[in-house]
Amino acid sequence: MIMLVVMKPHASRAEVLAVRERLLSMGFSVKEVPVDGRVTISASGDTGRLDPEEFASLGGVEQTIPISKPFRLVGREFRKENTEIIVDGEVVGGKELAIIAGPCSVESWEQVLQTAEAVKEAGAKFLRGGAYKPRTSPYAFQGLKAEGLALLREVKRVTGLKIVTEVKDVQTLNSVAEVADMIQIGARNMSNYSLLEAAGDLRTPVLLKRGISATIEELLMSAEYLLARGNQNVVLCERGIRTFEPYTRNTLDLNAIPVVKKLSHLPIIVDPSHGIGVWDGVASMALAGVAAGADGLLIEVHHDPSKALSDGHQSLKPERFKELMEKIRMVAAAVDRTVGESVNAQ
Amino acid sequence: MIMLVVMKPHASRAEVLAVRERLLSMGFSVKEVPVDGRVTISASGDTGRLDPEEFASLGGVEQTIPISKPFRLVGREFRKENTEIIVDGEVVGGKELAIIAGPCSVESWEQVLQTAEAVKEAGAKFLRGGAYKPRTSPYAFQGLKAEGLALLREVKRVTGLKIVTEVKDVQTLNSVAEVADMIQIGARNMSNYSLLEAAGDLRTPVLLKRGISATIEELLMSAEYLLARGNQNVVLCERGIRTFEPYTRNTLDLNAIPVVKKLSHLPIIVDPSHGIGVWDGVASMALAGVAAGADGLLIEVHHDPSKALSDGHQSLKPERFKELMEKIRMVAAAVDRTVGESVNAQ
Amino acid sequence: MIMLVVMKPHASRAEVLAVRERLLSMGFSVKEVPVDGRVTISASGDTGRLDPEEFASLGGVEQTIPISKPFRLVGREFRKENTEIIVDGEVVGGKELAIIAGPCSVESWEQVLQTAEAVKEAGAKFLRGGAYKPRTSPYAFQGLKAEGLALLREVKRVTGLKIVTEVKDVQTLNSVAEVADMIQIGARNMSNYSLLEAAGDLRTPVLLKRGISATIEELLMSAEYLLARGNQNVVLCERGIRTFEPYTRNTLDLNAIPVVKKLSHLPIIVDPSHGIGVWDGVASMALAGVAAGADGLLIEVHHDPSKALSDGHQSLKPERFKELMEKIRMVAAAVDRTVGESVNAQ
Amino acid sequence: MIMLVVMKPHASRAEVLAVRERLLSMGFSVKEVPVDGRVTISASGDTGRLDPEEFASLGGVEQTIPISKPFRLVGREFRKENTEIIVDGEVVGGKELAIIAGPCSVESWEQVLQTAEAVKEAGAKFLRGGAYKPRTSPYAFQGLKAEGLALLREVKRVTGLKIVTEVKDVQTLNSVAEVADMIQIGARNMSNYSLLEAAGDLRTPVLLKRGISATIEELLMSAEYLLARGNQNVVLCERGIRTFEPYTRNTLDLNAIPVVKKLSHLPIIVDPSHGIGVWDGVASMALAGVAAGADGLLIEVHHDPSKALSDGHQSLKPERFKELMEKIRMVAAAVDRTVGESVNAQ
Repeated sequence: MIMLVVMKPHASRAEVLAVRERLLSMGFSVKEVPVDGRVTISASGDTGRLDPEEFASLGGVEQTIPISKPFRLVGREFRKENTEIIVDGEVVGGKELAIIAGPCSVESWEQVLQTAEAVKEAGAKFLRGGAYKPRTSPYAFQGLKAEGLALLREVKRVTGLKIVTEVKDVQTLNSVAEVADMIQIGARNMSNYSLLEAAGDLRTPVLLKRGISATIEELLMSAEYLLARGNQNVVLCERGIRTFEPYTRNTLDLNAIPVVKKLSHLPIIVDPSHGIGVWDGVASMALAGVAAGADGLLIEVHHDPSKALSDGHQSLKPERFKELMEKIRMVAAAVDRTVGESVNAQ
Repeated sequence: MIMLVVMKPHASRAEVLAVRERLLSMGFSVKEVPVDGRVTISASGDTGRLDPEEFASLGGVEQTIPISKPFRLVGREFRKENTEIIVDGEVVGGKELAIIAGPCSVESWEQVLQTAEAVKEAGAKFLRGGAYKPRTSPYAFQGLKAEGLALLREVKRVTGLKIVTEVKDVQTLNSVAEVADMIQIGARNMSNYSLLEAAGDLRTPVLLKRGISATIEELLMSAEYLLARGNQNVVLCERGIRTFEPYTRNTLDLNAIPVVKKLSHLPIIVDPSHGIGVWDGVASMALAGVAAGADGLLIEVHHDPSKALSDGHQSLKPERFKELMEKIRMVAAAVDRTVGESVNAQ
Repeated sequence: MIMLVVMKPHASRAEVLAVRERLLSMGFSVKEVPVDGRVTISASGDTGRLDPEEFASLGGVEQTIPISKPFRLVGREFRKENTEIIVDGEVVGGKELAIIAGPCSVESWEQVLQTAEAVKEAGAKFLRGGAYKPRTSPYAFQGLKAEGLALLREVKRVTGLKIVTEVKDVQTLNSVAEVADMIQIGARNMSNYSLLEAAGDLRTPVLLKRGISATIEELLMSAEYLLARGNQNVVLCERGIRTFEPYTRNTLDLNAIPVVKKLSHLPIIVDPSHGIGVWDGVASMALAGVAAGADGLLIEVHHDPSKALSDGHQSLKPERFKELMEKIRMVAAAVDRTVGESVNAQ
Repeated sequence: MIMLVVMKPHASRAEVLAVRERLLSMGFSVKEVPVDGRVTISASGDTGRLDPEEFASLGGVEQTIPISKPFRLVGREFRKENTEIIVDGEVVGGKELAIIAGPCSVESWEQVLQTAEAVKEAGAKFLRGGAYKPRTSPYAFQGLKAEGLALLREVKRVTGLKIVTEVKDVQTLNSVAEVADMIQIGARNMSNYSLLEAAGDLRTPVLLKRGISATIEELLMSAEYLLARGNQNVVLCERGIRTFEPYTRNTLDLNAIPVVKKLSHLPIIVDPSHGIGVWDGVASMALAGVAAGADGLLIEVHHDPSKALSDGHQSLKPERFKELMEKIRMVAAAVDRTVGESVNAQ
């Protein structure tokens, strides 16, 4: 941990000494650098508790600047090579893109089975589908809950697709983890630290979505919660940030891909469906995500979007998804990645 | 619930009929309005499940426009008069401003007692102080937990101040509710719906903070979760939103005060300490909050901010808080509000 | 122009009549739709002066909703097919991507010639380079001005590359237009309407960059200024928006590509260099831009970025640009686009 | 000018030397500080051309950190006392608040005279009113232009109110400056540097509005353009920033008041009308602005807002403005400021 404390131009000697003393008392070693009549104090030490902002209120301090990154286990400095996550035998973060497709919510056996078969046929190896749905309104459809989990378990038995489904709280974590091959922690729960701690105590892979206005560093710090508790199986997901733009629901931030790849060894996938939030933009953003270097895609597919109980407006029909997969295959090849083969469903 | 579905200029008759049919099948009554060759369909009905965006993917639909507000129990249309919340005998939302002051975190008996006595002397009737602290880093100080709650219980016994303290998760809700006169749900948990449901099942007053990038409507919808479960004792809190500005930590959004007052009957207070996030801006923002019409203030005070384990850089020293209270008193009077009298501490 | 005026639930008959009368007096035809006791008034007419917000202050009005888009000549409804812009014989908006590359600022004959030859060799057909540079600080390098224009004219003579260079104000517009094959109007000037009007009176193609926090509709309205004055030769450019993210300078918003393609017939290119603002993210964002459907790229290349007088930190060296062009070629092919051939420079 | 260059943990000796050499060649003196195996280079010197980001692309550099502020003449370090600006005999930035009120646009003699008399009677000493209006749409009303200026000149003769009116471009600057006692440069032109330079060559006071997504530092840098050209008569204006909130048009950022007061000696006023953008929030935000420490207010008043040709939805009627002035007077007194007396109009 390295930090700089920049003193004000006319800070007194007593103020400088007070800062030094406080740093030393916290176990830091300290170096003082006078530049042009202004003192900068460099502090280094092996302590996790330092918050650079604590120093901002000390007399004579102008600013404090953290030099080290606040994350450790998720950082490239901790681990140089890309991490591959094994999800019930399938790899996320390898050469093959992880294609996770399916409905926003599990609604019925017919819906989930038809959609599952369609996405499998198109080459997806993972089925997404929510049984517990966090909703802005207490009056909105909140998912089929335990019944939804049972449908997912059954559709996995029939199709062999790996299951990715969201967990909403600590109370239902274990029952979700029994069915899910990868547990999704949604954007609204990215800073639900109690849930992160509980999921960190499991070893089930976690798909961690970026909060709607979270910085990339905050996303990595939330992943750090999982790794710090021992769960190394974390896949990050960029799913759109909030901006001023009214023509889209969210703004998919593909800039996060190269930034995360530079800072962290963890795989990162892209959710173009929530990311742009309007179905006729999903294909463009999916292709762009692959070209940007994402390790996979999370795409909403519904056999009848106009009847979907949630987010139908951003879902693709199975035939559109199939066409999109053909384009994804071509862009993937252009950036030296592969996509699972399409399967004859008969 | 009223909604408009605007069809595209050249939508076919079949597309219009498909929309009508879907609305009718959901229990809406429907009116069709052709304007300049473009059809708008008005739908009205008493159904909570409608999500206007579900219709966006239907053929020929250009946009859907919700006319009714999505909230009910928190709305001015539901209740015209301002609601007053009784917190262990003290009123929030009346003529007297609720002044809630104290440290970010409870750190020790000396710290909490000294600060409590100081804020009481200056006229505050509520003590804030966190025992459970959500922190971005898993390595940061997370609060004294149960020990912190015990200190709060004791300081209430000694000073008589009402206790406002944060709850982080459902698991610790009951133990927090035993000590807290008002339970704080923090910005990071504003969309933690499982926690909102659990707190909605209690009758303890809840101080609900706005999420860092939440819209005002989303804040009201989270309050709706509490009221829908039966807990009517909700105080809203504006605590700063995220913007581009690097000279402050957050941007206190005082615009939320007149907007909430128009839309809702619930009281709203302001947290200038987190709101601007730098101690030398707290006083200005506190006075501005009162002038804007807030029902109270949540202010960080620490007897020695430079030694605070969290957020010391935005805390006021007791003597600065006392001076500020004198100014608050004058601005309050100018807008026809009052503030508790200062007390001789001996 | 179609607009809806939604009255409040208990608006009086007199209030409804006052709104109707005002609409009629402005030349609109009016239809009144009572839904569930609440009146909505639909107004349609052929008038450009209506601002829906004018009605917001009339008694009894709850909200006004514009149904028509505010732009005309730039819209897909005005012109269905994609527009191709001819820039001194080269097409922008056709199957071949327009690759515009070069330094941020023109600094010297050696710099501009070396960079120009390098980008030409790699397959670019357009040279970018600023002679007039808007800078946040009055003390920063503001470009070589007339001398820079002279260098651009000469480098065009030598290499045959088409020149794209920025105009800063009306006063220098004509001299810029004499040298530029396409005039760039930068992000800071997107809402400089006097400059837009003057550029609209020319017929030189204009590259119009999106303002740093402009909505897509505002970008299109600024283009409308150009078309309304008679200059149909407009190429839009997405160049990054301002968000909270500190790891990048800007956030390239590729969502704008499918949205603009849906709303407008004008070509749109992407500037990944400013867009993400850190050189090691430029390649990912360039490839993503192509995959998203952009009609071209604007890329900063400098033969020695560490000595650049502006924006060196986001420039690519010629050899990195050459490698990138090979990847662009492959992604372009995957989405059925082409890129100019690389040229042997001897 | 002081800057830190932080090298990467394993930067080579050659990379460190290259950075040092480049800094020395630019005239900086340099100090090297090894901390925990990581080198930080402190550079100081008296050069205006340094852009810290230029160094970001040098090998081995991790980050560069400007320590000095980029502004000079506008800074508190340059001038400790508050600056008072004299506007035709009236002071802005003194104990008395500058109240500037009037219509968004000048529309007719009756409108401007009636409004002027009303605001004078309520105690305002400045009349606002636009003759040249920048508008997002080329089809919207753009002001009465020269005719509007003539009406303003005449209304000043009749009422004695000081005139504040907006300039849109360099071409009309001189004619605006002949009528205006204070020239307004609007939010859209805050980064129109050619206009700032031209206005900097005058000595007429300038009211400089913050751009809709400008940081406070960018606002100060634009003011620096004016002062650097010799015009010391600059009043800053906070007028609302763009956020996600749909219930208001803009979000008035009162946090800017204490921040500007700390960083700069220039006066700053608040525009609550544009700032929140809905008329029923204007009063709250005006009072809050005064309590926050603003040096004045810019308020839209129109004798018949529902007939206003622009921004009627955020204008106050004269009688509401008069009531508001009484409240402003009380809040001003509470923070030790004064407001001009109301005048009997007969």
